[in-house]
Amino acid sequence: MFRHVVMFKWADGVDADHVAAVADGLDNLAASIEQIKQYRHGPDVGLSDQNFDYVVVGDFDSSDDYVVYRDHPVHQEFIAELIAGRITERAAAQFEID
Amino acid sequence: MFRHVVMFKWADGVDADHVAAVADGLDNLAASIEQIKQYRHGPDVGLSDQNFDYVVVGDFDSSDDYVVYRDHPVHQEFIAELIAGRITERAAAQFEID
Repeated sequence: MFRHVVMFKWADGVDADHVAAVADGLDNLAASIEQIKQYRHGPDVGLSDQNFDYVVVGDFDSSDDYVVYRDHPVHQEFIAELIAGRITERAAAQFEID
Repeated sequence: MFRHVVMFKWADGVDADHVAAVADGLDNLAASIEQIKQYRHGPDVGLSDQNFDYVVVGDFDSSDDYVVYRDHPVHQEFIAELIAGRITERAAAQFEID
C-alpha cells in the first residue's frame, strides 16, 4: 500500500466555518475519487502549540493511484477553492507501507 | 481512534545507515510500547522535492494512550539518540479518527 500525508497551518482569517468546508470537501474527494482506499482527516487536537492545524492521511493501492488522485480535477478544484491562499505552511510526504 | 503524524527533514550528514537505524528504532518502539495499535513509517518516495524526508503515523485507542507513548522512556531515549540534532524541520499533528 501507499500512504500520502499532508498537514497545513491555516492563515489568519481562516475560521471554523472554513475548516468545516474543508472537512466536507475532503469527504467529497473520498467519495468522488475511486483511487482513494482510505481517507482520514481532521483538525489537530491541540496537545502541542507547535503542531500543524489540520492533517490528511490517504491510502492508495499504489503510487500510480496516488498520482491519479493528486492530479484529479476534483482534487485540484478543491485545492484551488479551499486551500490555496488559506495556509501559511504545508508539510507533505508519501511512503510505502506493508 | 486517535492518530499521531510526524514528519522530519534530515540534517546534512544523515546517511542511509542512520535512516535504517531510525527505521529499526521505530520498529522497536512499536514492539515495546503496548499503547501503539498500529505504527507505519518510512522514507518519502521522492515524488516532490518539497516533501519531508521521513514520516511516521501512529494509531492509538485514545489521546491518553498517545500521551503515554509520547512520554514513554523508550520513546524519549529513541528521540535523544536518533532524532535530536539530526533534523532541520519537524511537522506534527494529532487528530481523532472514526
